[in-house]
Amino acid sequence: MPSDGNATASPFDVTLPNGLRVLYEPMPWLPTLSVTLLMPFGSVTDPIGNEGSASVLHEWLQRGAGDLDSRALSDAFEDLGVRRGGNAGRETSTLGAGFLAADAARALPLLADMVKRPRFESPEFAPAVELAQEELRSLEDAPTQKMFEALTARFLASPHRRSSLGTPEGLAALTEAGVRADAADRVGPDGAILALAGGSTWEQLLPVIEETFGTWRGATQPVPAPELAPQGLHHVDAETTQLQVGLAYPSAQVGTDEGYLYTLALNVLSGSMGARLFTEIREKRGLVYSVSAGTRALRGLGFTVGYAGTTTERAAETLQVFLAELDRLAEGVTAEELERSRTGLLSSVVMRGESSGATAGRLATDAYYLGRARTLAEVSDKIESATLEQVNEYLAANPVPTPTIVTLGRLPEGGLGLPAATATATEVGTGTGTATGTDAGTEGRA
Amino acid sequence: MPSDGNATASPFDVTLPNGLRVLYEPMPWLPTLSVTLLMPFGSVTDPIGNEGSASVLHEWLQRGAGDLDSRALSDAFEDLGVRRGGNAGRETSTLGAGFLAADAARALPLLADMVKRPRFESPEFAPAVELAQEELRSLEDAPTQKMFEALTARFLASPHRRSSLGTPEGLAALTEAGVRADAADRVGPDGAILALAGGSTWEQLLPVIEETFGTWRGATQPVPAPELAPQGLHHVDAETTQLQVGLAYPSAQVGTDEGYLYTLALNVLSGSMGARLFTEIREKRGLVYSVSAGTRALRGLGFTVGYAGTTTERAAETLQVFLAELDRLAEGVTAEELERSRTGLLSSVVMRGESSGATAGRLATDAYYLGRARTLAEVSDKIESATLEQVNEYLAANPVPTPTIVTLGRLPEGGLGLPAATATATEVGTGTGTATGTDAGTEGRA
Repeated sequence: MPSDGNATASPFDVTLPNGLRVLYEPMPWLPTLSVTLLMPFGSVTDPIGNEGSASVLHEWLQRGAGDLDSRALSDAFEDLGVRRGGNAGRETSTLGAGFLAADAARALPLLADMVKRPRFESPEFAPAVELAQEELRSLEDAPTQKMFEALTARFLASPHRRSSLGTPEGLAALTEAGVRADAADRVGPDGAILALAGGSTWEQLLPVIEETFGTWRGATQPVPAPELAPQGLHHVDAETTQLQVGLAYPSAQVGTDEGYLYTLALNVLSGSMGARLFTEIREKRGLVYSVSAGTRALRGLGFTVGYAGTTTERAAETLQVFLAELDRLAEGVTAEELERSRTGLLSSVVMRGESSGATAGRLATDAYYLGRARTLAEVSDKIESATLEQVNEYLAANPVPTPTIVTLGRLPEGGLGLPAATATATEVGTGTGTATGTDAGTEGRA
Repeated sequence: MPSDGNATASPFDVTLPNGLRVLYEPMPWLPTLSVTLLMPFGSVTDPIGNEGSASVLHEWLQRGAGDLDSRALSDAFEDLGVRRGGNAGRETSTLGAGFLAADAARALPLLADMVKRPRFESPEFAPAVELAQEELRSLEDAPTQKMFEALTARFLASPHRRSSLGTPEGLAALTEAGVRADAADRVGPDGAILALAGGSTWEQLLPVIEETFGTWRGATQPVPAPELAPQGLHHVDAETTQLQVGLAYPSAQVGTDEGYLYTLALNVLSGSMGARLFTEIREKRGLVYSVSAGTRALRGLGFTVGYAGTTTERAAETLQVFLAELDRLAEGVTAEELERSRTGLLSSVVMRGESSGATAGRLATDAYYLGRARTLAEVSDKIESATLEQVNEYLAANPVPTPTIVTLGRLPEGGLGLPAATATATEVGTGTGTATGTDAGTEGRA
């Protein structure tokens, strides 16, 4: 039966001579193929003074490649019904595509040309920059997203604190020649990952990939290791109706042995409608409309991000309950909670395993963050085999550290009323919390 | 091969004696089953003075059912790893679930109990109301969504113009007894649709459905026919960075013969990165970060909604180009554009057909808006068989009517500089554009 084919097979995994790692997971019951090309460039490695270069570069290289100008390239993708995606991120940027598996030999060369032979034509430069500027401006109307940018900028000390959208100054300083040089420096195959999943075969795909992506040349730059900023409490004043509350603390990397134990526990806190956070903050007290906590990954640093959108009046109680729930994790979870968490995670694994796009994405991020792609069977085994004792021993030995907190909106007059132990451990900042290239300082790449 | 099983089979489709329509599309290669329960209640049929009742009712009925209180119900779902969803809308509200197909006989009774035997316990009422209030308040921090609420309120004259989130006054006026009575009046099986898709069999599912949903009793209310408001141009002042521009006009209903021709044409305008709107407004002029146009459905009324997020300075040009592109549709599309549009739509059909959740959703909305569920083969055939002549004849005979336009943000000093023909046909409103129960007036249900 194909339905469990994906749960048992190891994905194909080879590294081409040019350094590109290629992974493929067959899903022979699907008529489509999904592709994720993950590249190790992003705002972290933006040249100092040119913050936002990765974002513009990522847009520009999709505007004409090889023999095709911007319009012709776009038409060529559409002639095949290719769905395209991708984004420019902090550590990495991606290009994604989904199409009929039968069209792979025609779609993959187009995708490869964007990184191998981008045309970087002059008339396409200004629109690419303007789009990036518009995206940065639109952040002003999106308080939740703006708070998360501020949280990242306060939580991290390394250039990972920079926004993937760049800065107004950095974008304004970009030149065509500068971005072309930046692309030559950063958009190469070494360290990049090409992940595919869907209804094709390795025998059919590999020759096409070798012929297209195998001849990709270009340099890449090492991504620096992430570093934490001192824990703190920061506020961004804004005329919003809701108070946006975000918090972050380092935690076990997903996919490691400790990561499974932590994920099972965090899922007790915020995995579902019956989870502790949802019950304590949302259902019992009606304090917020949204509340959540989830894991995030940088290479070499796992961390957890929490969020609550609440009113100024309810902010203090919301935050207090949130922090108390994080502290309470050290006391462990019950057998019943663990079983529910386990069931929920296993169910997620099965459901995500049905999608070629999600599968290609998992292969790429596994290879990047963990160094290898896990099979679904391995993920399920790890989730199934974790014992209550292991989870609770892990939680007792690894209490949640005091998080860095960022609020955005209007603070209550009495402040956030944090318990003394937390308040004395923190300093209240007044900056905007927005990452700027200049204060990321010498850690950026010159 | 299972890969095209879903493209050829007709879905199972029966109406139970209590009026509930049940549809099922087997996807035997999947280990999961997705369910959408679509019910004909929403803000359109909210009692006058109690705007938001549907939203609160929808939340409250998920907080305990049958023998299980709120917590126990939530735990029961989690014990099975059920992923839940759903929302309270204008005409209809939904409950959704995804789970392992093998658990159907245990998950479906829980889902059925929420509508058959909601407990509507007193302690759960206030939190349900507070959540609805918080959701309404959060709209203030979401300018795009707020603009769309204003656009709907200005585009429609019937109670469909009301926000699905209710009004502050309506929510404040809700009582436990009132919402319980409202539920008895509106949450019944007649006119409701239960759509399922995934890895089970009709023989296994039908007895379970008959035993659970077959014994559902309760009244429903007819949903009134939608009526259009006079076309107009309206502005909502707000201190935003972007100017939010929305427009709406009636158009062919998706899934009808005319609907296929119109959808193929609209896809030329806004289906992809190479589409006209994207090229003219975004790529060539860099006027906006986001621009799009898409079809929407009410029962008995198809319409199209356009969106652009731009700056105050660029608003006039953006809107002018947008309106010119809508007008230009009457001149037809080229053979090349049609083929690309066709390929893109066919590709979407295949990709959405891979997901059990998307399939269950399609069955439910087809049954509600069209009266019957289409097969994917039928959809593909219609898209494949439309000729250039048919599309262009349709476009020439059905030019896009002057849309109702709503802007939100800060208007440019010189106004929007609309061409005289458009400007004289419109009146500039100054209201907030927010739908209120009171001015929906006597069309609401008393």
